[in-house]
Amino acid sequence: MNFGCAKLIPSTSSIHWIDQLEKIVGKTHVIRPGADDFAKYEQDETEDLRFPPQAVVRPASADEIQKIVRLAQTEKLPIVPRGGGTGLSGGALAVKGGIVLSLERMNRILEIDKYNFFAIVQPGIITQQFQETVEAEGLFYPPDPASRGSCTIGGNVAENAGGPRALKYGVTKDYVYGLKAVLANGECVSFGGKLLKDVAGYNMTQLFVGSEGTLGIVTEITLKLIALPRLRRTLLAPFDDLHQAAAAVPAIMARGIMPCALEFMERDCLQAIENHIGKPVRFSKNAAVLLIEVNGNHESMLDAEIETIGEVLEEYDAVDCFIAESTAQQNEIWDIRRIAGEAVKSISLYKEEDTVVPRSRVPELVSGVHEICDRWGLRVICYGHAGDGNIHCNILKAGMTDKKWNEELPLAVEEIFKHTVSLGGSISGEHGIGYIQKRYLPLSLGEAEIELHRQLKHALDPQNLLNPDKILPN
Amino acid sequence: MNFGCAKLIPSTSSIHWIDQLEKIVGKTHVIRPGADDFAKYEQDETEDLRFPPQAVVRPASADEIQKIVRLAQTEKLPIVPRGGGTGLSGGALAVKGGIVLSLERMNRILEIDKYNFFAIVQPGIITQQFQETVEAEGLFYPPDPASRGSCTIGGNVAENAGGPRALKYGVTKDYVYGLKAVLANGECVSFGGKLLKDVAGYNMTQLFVGSEGTLGIVTEITLKLIALPRLRRTLLAPFDDLHQAAAAVPAIMARGIMPCALEFMERDCLQAIENHIGKPVRFSKNAAVLLIEVNGNHESMLDAEIETIGEVLEEYDAVDCFIAESTAQQNEIWDIRRIAGEAVKSISLYKEEDTVVPRSRVPELVSGVHEICDRWGLRVICYGHAGDGNIHCNILKAGMTDKKWNEELPLAVEEIFKHTVSLGGSISGEHGIGYIQKRYLPLSLGEAEIELHRQLKHALDPQNLLNPDKILPN
Repeated sequence: MNFGCAKLIPSTSSIHWIDQLEKIVGKTHVIRPGADDFAKYEQDETEDLRFPPQAVVRPASADEIQKIVRLAQTEKLPIVPRGGGTGLSGGALAVKGGIVLSLERMNRILEIDKYNFFAIVQPGIITQQFQETVEAEGLFYPPDPASRGSCTIGGNVAENAGGPRALKYGVTKDYVYGLKAVLANGECVSFGGKLLKDVAGYNMTQLFVGSEGTLGIVTEITLKLIALPRLRRTLLAPFDDLHQAAAAVPAIMARGIMPCALEFMERDCLQAIENHIGKPVRFSKNAAVLLIEVNGNHESMLDAEIETIGEVLEEYDAVDCFIAESTAQQNEIWDIRRIAGEAVKSISLYKEEDTVVPRSRVPELVSGVHEICDRWGLRVICYGHAGDGNIHCNILKAGMTDKKWNEELPLAVEEIFKHTVSLGGSISGEHGIGYIQKRYLPLSLGEAEIELHRQLKHALDPQNLLNPDKILPN
Repeated sequence: MNFGCAKLIPSTSSIHWIDQLEKIVGKTHVIRPGADDFAKYEQDETEDLRFPPQAVVRPASADEIQKIVRLAQTEKLPIVPRGGGTGLSGGALAVKGGIVLSLERMNRILEIDKYNFFAIVQPGIITQQFQETVEAEGLFYPPDPASRGSCTIGGNVAENAGGPRALKYGVTKDYVYGLKAVLANGECVSFGGKLLKDVAGYNMTQLFVGSEGTLGIVTEITLKLIALPRLRRTLLAPFDDLHQAAAAVPAIMARGIMPCALEFMERDCLQAIENHIGKPVRFSKNAAVLLIEVNGNHESMLDAEIETIGEVLEEYDAVDCFIAESTAQQNEIWDIRRIAGEAVKSISLYKEEDTVVPRSRVPELVSGVHEICDRWGLRVICYGHAGDGNIHCNILKAGMTDKKWNEELPLAVEEIFKHTVSLGGSISGEHGIGYIQKRYLPLSLGEAEIELHRQLKHALDPQNLLNPDKILPN
């Protein structure tokens, strides 16, 4: 499925505007096709897709971005904003050529406000680096996408990234309380601020969050922080029955406990990890495991919560329960979980579907996905965030012919998504629609809903310059 | 400040469409001018403003609303959606005449999903009634505007209502995970659902929340719930110095405690309550009190939190600390706090400003507001949500002449808002912009930001039929 379009490589006629880009940001910060580091901007982490832009530009300020957008307007050039390039739906791919606008140089933390629990950052800051910086101040920024070591806050905002802690703490959108952006018309706008409440006008901030760079280029972000919880407890529970594992999840919450993570991996996932890391993984012979973590500041509360969780797990026929006794053991459990994606995807070419359903429907989701893939002769491995119903289904090409993979996979994916939607779900929980899922958007949204998207996009970007050919189906 | 426009009372030419309204919803559910219960639809709880619509209609379904919107399109009639009529910014006032569309009959709870912690409701359900219903199931819907006994969830969604518990739990927007709405073009749309994560398309749900009925008429709402905390502790701490009271607020949170309410009342407010209820109020001689409540499920954690809060209060020179020892005492404290608005507003004609700043700036906000009002010879009483920086400043007309009140008040209000914005604040925390604050919106938002609002409004409602003359300045 390589849709790369060689015809988009620039002709000499485009040199004029590339020169102008260089005047805006300086020669070093424009990368032309053929340059050493050009290739990485042709792709993100979405399958094996590559789309070369006509140029890459790395501005250092909103002011430079404004000038780039105005140049793009004049030259009718697509602009594709780019964060860490870790996206899984092709949001940062220059599918229509044009300019890839990398925000990597705008990577400063502008303020950490310890009194009001807010931070102001530029979009290019690496998520984990930001998290570690605020944690050193006793503060906490919960969203933790698996790629947090290399993704950026700007990219997280564009995609509304989640992660395991979303269950208790919410996703990126729940922390974005203000932002600045450059619009397609070249205007700079600023919404929200260090305010827990603000109803002066429409919630423009949330319109930009998750809009995947199609409505504006975010240049500054105000993030809410919370106090860093001091303590956590982590446990791992294996089940012989996938359905029992999934059913235990709402039962835990019904007891008044909100874990900060409640993750699910099925046997095939554990075994893929075992093969990938080349050493045994705990409970890899069981049908599924739940990874559960609770956190807080009060020892005896966490003890009581772990005890209650243990009762529920027993009630739902967990066959064991391993409670981490040290930070090292906690990290070991999380390292296993965090490497799941890499391990599964290392098996062969893959297609990852980011299904999400109400959490009580996870058993039906997982068994339905297996049933569909079995029918199409596809191998699938599921893992993810059982607490919030967000299950990543990785379909592996393995030994399948290219022909079968290219022709039949889209049909199987459509079936998976129809099944997901029939359970009250959506076709993407945290990866975004981007380029690769837009054909499926009509499964999640009706014609009137999509038309409303088009109206909004047209109102904000009438020339369709900002990340064109994303989200909305053709 | 009565802007009522008698000229909008319907002529006989409008009878034709009123007849059609009756065909849509039935005769009983159209109220014509002059009918017994017409008067209440001319006003909400915003000052003494009255605007008679040309008719009131009370539909029972989205289908009926769709027909009403299509009729309004044809007849070019403004439609003003209305919930409980408790708004404080004039959102439900028919300032351009037309149809008041009351959602009072669409008041059912459609589903309470105990497994997934979601509820689906119609917009007309009374907030408190909804809360009590879910609490009986062990679930919790935190947003608690002071008017919760008579306001509706639909109104809360339109205004993005807050309340004391917003500090720990967020405001209405943080609980709205999906909605259905009828657009100005008569189309029904549906976004989101019982999903904690969903990134399939723009966050349209949040575009509608807080849009004050100007972008669509919300007909169904999916609300996230949480597990009901079993325990709470409530305390009241008086201070001789307003600044010390305000400074204690971020200090409590810096100790890792997030109270579920952290309210502030100044002496004048306590004394107004005392006069209003005709009996002594605790600590009414002190400069200010903080009302602090923590909640959870674990006794010893709450004890530890209360102890830590006590330490901080002592450090910031609280002169006393009253800890409620029974539910009756807790209710007594909250009754005092909840009656503050009514008590203050009963003194004379008033204008309430819903200022919000980063919480560390509350002392500067309150002293600045007093300084400005002193200079203009206006009496002001402040109280509100110190934890989230949202302070209600009630300016009282008292003995002032109508001329001075009408001419000078807007200038003083403008100064108050300029001061608020200079502290990083906004002109409304939870009451909305509606009709009475729109002239001040340019203090919170710049020209490019307001232009973006206009573009959105025009894209969604090109005829400007939905709640016209609200939010956006002329």
